[in-house]
Formats: sequence, structure tokens, C-alpha cells
Amino acid sequence: MTQLSSARAGIITPEMKIVAQKEDIDVHSLMDNIAKGRVVIPANINHKKLSPCGIGEGLSIKVNANIGTSSDHADIDEELEKMQVAIDAGADAVMDLSTGGDINACRKKIIDASTAPIGTVPIYQAVVEAINSRGGVIHLTVDKIFEVIETQVAEGVDFITVHCGLTRAALGMLKRQGRITNIVSRGGALLTTWMLHHDKENPLYENYDRLLEIAKKYDVTLSLGDGLRPGCLADATDRAQIHELMTLGELTEAAWAQDVQVMIEGPGHVPLNQIRANIMLEKQLCKNAPFYVLGPLVTDIAAGHDHVACAIGGAVAGEAGADFLCYVTPSEHLSLPTIDDVREGVIVTKIAAHAADIARGNRGAIERDRRMAEARRNLDWETQMQCALDPVKARRVRGENPPGESDVCTMCGKFCAIKQVREYFNS
Amino acid sequence: MTQLSSARAGIITPEMKIVAQKEDIDVHSLMDNIAKGRVVIPANINHKKLSPCGIGEGLSIKVNANIGTSSDHADIDEELEKMQVAIDAGADAVMDLSTGGDINACRKKIIDASTAPIGTVPIYQAVVEAINSRGGVIHLTVDKIFEVIETQVAEGVDFITVHCGLTRAALGMLKRQGRITNIVSRGGALLTTWMLHHDKENPLYENYDRLLEIAKKYDVTLSLGDGLRPGCLADATDRAQIHELMTLGELTEAAWAQDVQVMIEGPGHVPLNQIRANIMLEKQLCKNAPFYVLGPLVTDIAAGHDHVACAIGGAVAGEAGADFLCYVTPSEHLSLPTIDDVREGVIVTKIAAHAADIARGNRGAIERDRRMAEARRNLDWETQMQCALDPVKARRVRGENPPGESDVCTMCGKFCAIKQVREYFNS
Repeated sequence: MTQLSSARAGIITPEMKIVAQKEDIDVHSLMDNIAKGRVVIPANINHKKLSPCGIGEGLSIKVNANIGTSSDHADIDEELEKMQVAIDAGADAVMDLSTGGDINACRKKIIDASTAPIGTVPIYQAVVEAINSRGGVIHLTVDKIFEVIETQVAEGVDFITVHCGLTRAALGMLKRQGRITNIVSRGGALLTTWMLHHDKENPLYENYDRLLEIAKKYDVTLSLGDGLRPGCLADATDRAQIHELMTLGELTEAAWAQDVQVMIEGPGHVPLNQIRANIMLEKQLCKNAPFYVLGPLVTDIAAGHDHVACAIGGAVAGEAGADFLCYVTPSEHLSLPTIDDVREGVIVTKIAAHAADIARGNRGAIERDRRMAEARRNLDWETQMQCALDPVKARRVRGENPPGESDVCTMCGKFCAIKQVREYFNS
Repeated sequence: MTQLSSARAGIITPEMKIVAQKEDIDVHSLMDNIAKGRVVIPANINHKKLSPCGIGEGLSIKVNANIGTSSDHADIDEELEKMQVAIDAGADAVMDLSTGGDINACRKKIIDASTAPIGTVPIYQAVVEAINSRGGVIHLTVDKIFEVIETQVAEGVDFITVHCGLTRAALGMLKRQGRITNIVSRGGALLTTWMLHHDKENPLYENYDRLLEIAKKYDVTLSLGDGLRPGCLADATDRAQIHELMTLGELTEAAWAQDVQVMIEGPGHVPLNQIRANIMLEKQLCKNAPFYVLGPLVTDIAAGHDHVACAIGGAVAGEAGADFLCYVTPSEHLSLPTIDDVREGVIVTKIAAHAADIARGNRGAIERDRRMAEARRNLDWETQMQCALDPVKARRVRGENPPGESDVCTMCGKFCAIKQVREYFNS
């Protein structure tokens, strides 16, 4: 049984109990939301070390960190370290997007080591193997795609990105309307190349039932990918993007009919004033399936600081109802991220998720800030450090420039406002 | 004549011409907005090297960087370097908040060197001198406050923060309602200490006419400070804050009656879901005077990364109508910022301002992102670097991890989506 079929049958699974406890919510309301498809628990029956995590309505907003080798940089130990650094910094899930070196070995080690749910994009490996063995993406076969999917999923991958909504109809809209950056999704571009070369429909769309069978067998959550997400602000919220989203809505209902858990992936590069409408559209068109947003990045010109452009968009998306934020690192658009980039990316995306949790009224998040505020009022620096989202950096910054009086900091020194007025206000 | 009196008389000043040219807008509509108090040009008649900058409705959002010595760390050369680094990184204005070492010498050097408008908080120096010469803030006299204000202003300071709205009535509301962090504004805390010790009204409120005379003489813009801004999310948008804001609205109209330019300072720590209402309130209560926000920070627990919490809040505030964003650095709440912190703080606040400019429909901002998007589509890396808000870091990140093929980056390597589908979409 999947988490979805269990919830529909009124059965509370061990995973639901753990998630309800982590979130400090009633397990029956969690079960109801899973039954309605509004919450997913990506928990492959074969991921042995998993500590389950829920994504969706009524839960805290989750953060994903992408790691993985590339054809230009393939070091498995480094990717394993990135995984651990991401989880230690607070990532709730990790995606292994490896396309270089020994992809199978890298993924197996990551699944074995990870307590967090692991996601992949199986089409990457299928294409790499088609290129290596047969010389090009066009030689990819439908059977090969499904062979790779089943192999990955049988090993314990908890969620997979599948670009099932990138149809010929959506591509036609893209072509007719025009775009500046066309397609910026790697999976979307690979599928498009194959589809246009062979003049065929998207094999993941045409063989969706086959995908659902595999997903159901291992209770893998489908993360329905946005292969036509905008790659720049000027391309945002266009007909190609919305066509794909509507198809994903139909595929969501088809998955639910087979007891398969689904979440929807979303843009991308989106102007600040279009984010709220994008979240509303997903919730409406996809019947409140959890929304997993890739950013959104609120400007195209932040190279070197795209993690900040992502934090801005992620916070606004979260406040508007997004459930799962994919991080972006300072290396986005420039390079494969380093270990330090991974840590920085996770922390700033956690800040965005936390700010949105507070805006959505999450009691635990509000209470955490209150504890920090009280520690500040009390000039209790040790508690301030413990309350910080990143105690390591907070201690380092303060330690590098120690104040003359230990109860203040070097910003205001003896003119510390809190210290000055303490006698008048603290009882 | 001040910029305001000129605008009211239908006179286009040289400063208005420069601002209209920089913003690519019609100088008559700029003049109209200055006449209505919706735009200020902080331009002291004695700031010789100034390149004027406009702040307010219809203009791009501006960014301020705070620098200055503290009692714990006072190195004038370092502060001068921070000023230059801030301006080079894109800061539109700089505030010298020095409270340590030779405050006069530091400020004079900063004014002489700066092309950007310079702001100060004169009460800081007045208090430091009262403490050094007479042993405590309570020995501060009203004449001393105005002596310092006139000295600083005569030297060419373009805008001064004056906490004129922090009245006994507002303090009474604060005391009756209770707060976690009470007062976190340095100037607000200094004035409160003086007011409560002497059982007197705020001298800047009681002697507001004297302040207006000085401001008018040098055309100094008053930045009406928010001494009661919330220091944590739990204290946001409370009666004390709003009482002070309403007083600032009254003082705005009093200043306009004397042809004095005014902007309003705003919070502080504000939950994401309260930011838009805060901007609306300022615009309503202060008759559309430009709004200068300090953050807002959308969480209390981001120590070490408060520049990101500030960028999130600043972008949302900007979209909602804020005109001027005060940066926050990674050192906020922990330490006086380093030179690197200043640069990082300016860049991320520029990202927030730029994202909000786009959301507000600023044509120049939208065009800049379009150029970047076209360079990405064309895999034209040199143009991408030129379009980046921080070309220095963008080049460094890419250079540290050079790709095998020069037209892609190491993130996707040979699976670069844009490269794959070029033949199908680019004409």
C-alpha cells in the first residue's frame, strides 16, 4: 500500500505518526490531507535509513538541496559530503542530479547514507547511457527510460522528477509564441530533442500508466517536472508554461486514481509581482497537490548571488502557499556548487521557508523567533547563538570582532539601545 | 530656496535635471512630485561633490549603506574605504553613524569624498560629547543638540535622521502595552533615557520649528526617524510604532509648510505578512512622503545572514511602495560590519531593490534583465558578466571552476539545456 492508499483507507502508517510528531500536529488531520492529495510523504519502501518528512498543506515549508556530479566535475566523495553538509544545515530533502562519473555508485551511496528523502531525475541517467553506448540522445529508447526509472526506484529513491506534461501541444505553443531562453530545464531539453527529432509525443506522457505502476509498487512520489519553466523573467507565466501546468493537473488526478502520491514542480524565473498568481494557478489547476518551486528567482542579473534572488522569491511563494522550496546556490548559472555553496544555499532557503512559515501562522516558527527576541532583550548571547538558524556563522562573526563589554556587540558598543533603556522597561 | 520651494514655484533646478536624466523620466513630472512632497532630492547646498539622487514615487528604489566608527572600533581610513566600496557596489546613499574616535574628522572626510548623498544621526554625536565632557547622556542640553545639528548640516550633510515623533504619549503606549525588545533604535533609546530621567517631552518634538529653520537654510532633508521601531517580529505593528508614525505624519505636513523636504523611516523587524500593510499605512498617514525602510527583517533568527532576511523584506516592501531601502550586512546583531560585509550588504539590497523595480514596472530595470536573458540564450558569457549586478563575483565563481567546453558552465556541462535545443528554436 502507498501512503495515499493507506490514508484513503483510514490507516495511520508509522510514517504518518513520525511526520505528525515532527510537525506537532494531529495525525488524523495529516491523514485526511494525505488522502486528499494535499500532503505527500515521499518514502520509498526500500529506503531503509529514511526519517520520513511530510510536504504540503498545514505543514512547515520544506527545503531541498540539489547535489550530484556533472560531466565536467565528478567526485563521489565530494557529493556525499555535500549531502551531509546539506542535511546538517537543515535541508529536508536532497536530489542527486548526477550526470558524470559512476552515476549508479554515487546514487547508491547517497541513498544508503541519507536520513532525508532522496530525489532523482532518471531521464538524466538514461540519456547519459544512450550517449555513452550509442552516441546520442536521439538513440534513447522508451524501454531504456523505464529500465532506468525502475532500477533507480527499486534502490530506494523517494521521489522522481518526470517531465510528463511537456507535450507536443505545449511545444507548439512555445514555438508559436516565441521565447527568449526557450527551454532551460535539462530534462525538458533532452526530451524535446528526442521528441522533435523523432517527431513523436513525449514518451513519459504516452506511457504514463507504466510510470504509475512502478511508482505504486515502491510508493515513489512523482514530482511532475516543469520542463517548460521560464528561464528568464520575460518568459514567465506564458502560454507554454501554463499549458504544461494544466497537463500536470490532469496527470495529478490520473496518479491519484492509482493511489500514487504527486507533487508539482514550478518555476523558475518569475517577477515578484507574478509569484502569487503562479502559486494560486498551481493550487487551482492541480487540485491543491503540493507545489515544489525552483526558486523562483526574482531577477535574471544576480549571478553570484542567485541564492538571494531565490530566497526572495521562495519566501513570497511560501507565504502564498508553496510547500517545498528547491534551493539555489551562489554558483547558479555559473558553476557546479562547492561544498560551501551548498551550505550557504540551504541556510538562505531555510530563512525564506521560515519567514514564510511565520507569515502562514506556524506556531513553532513564531515561538522560535520569540525565544530569540527574549534572548536579545536579556542580552543573553549564548541563548541567541543557540536560537540562530546558523549558530556556526553567528558565533564566528561575533568572535572575530569581540566587544569591549561582553553584554553588547561592536555595532553599537556602549550605546547599545537595549542596554540603555533596560532600567526603564524591564520589570 | 530648497528643492521643495523651487518645485512649488515651478522652477526646475540643476539637481532636478540631473535626477530626471539619471532616471530617464520627464523633468516636469519629477518637479510635480517634488512639489507634492512625494519625491525628495537630498542635496545640501554645501555638499560640493554631490551627484544628486532622487528618492520617491516614480523613481527607481534607492539603497543606503550605513557605515561609521563605534566606541569599540574606530578607524577613519577603514570607514572611508567602506564608503567607497559601498558606492562602487551601487549604494545610492551612505549614512555615517560614527560614535567612536574623532567623529568630526570622520564625517568631514566622508562628505568631502562622497559623490552620493550623506546622512547622519546628529543625536549620536551630541550624546557622545555629553558623556565625554559631562559624564552621561542625562547631561545633554537642548542647545547642545541643536549646536551639533547645525555644525553637521553646515558642513554639507544631505539628510539627517531626527527621532521627532518619539513622544511621551507614544512611550506611554509602549509602557502600557508591553513589548519584548522595548527600544532597539540607538537614537530612540538615548532620547528616551533623557526624557524619562528629566520627566520632559522629546526636545526634537518640542523644538521642531528650530529644526525646520536649520533644515531650510541648508536644504537638508529630514529623515523622520522611527525610534520606536519593533526590534522583533512579535513587537511589529503595535500601538507604540503606529502612534509614532502618526506623529511623523503631522510633522511631515509641518515641514512641508516651511518648504523642508521630508522622508519617513520605517521598521525594522516585521513578519512577511505585515509588510504590505505597513507600507500602505505610511503612505496614508504621512501623505505619500517617501518611505525609507530599515530592512524590514522577516525573521529574528537569521544572525550571520540578516542581509538575506533584509533582502526578502526589502523586496516585498519595495514592491508595495517603499522608496528607499537601508541595507543590513551579515554582521547585523553581531558586530560592526567589515569592508567585505559592506559590499555584500549593498549587493543583496540592490538585488531586492531591482526585483521590486521590475515588479513596479520600471522600464530600465526590465530592459536590463532582458539583456541578460538574451546573453544567456546566446551562450555569450562576456555579455552575461557585464549584465550581472556583481560582475566581480560572477567572474570569480565561473573562473574558479572552468568548464570543459567554453560555451557552457560546469553545472550542466555538455547537457546544457540551452545548448541542446538551440537548433530547434533559434532562428
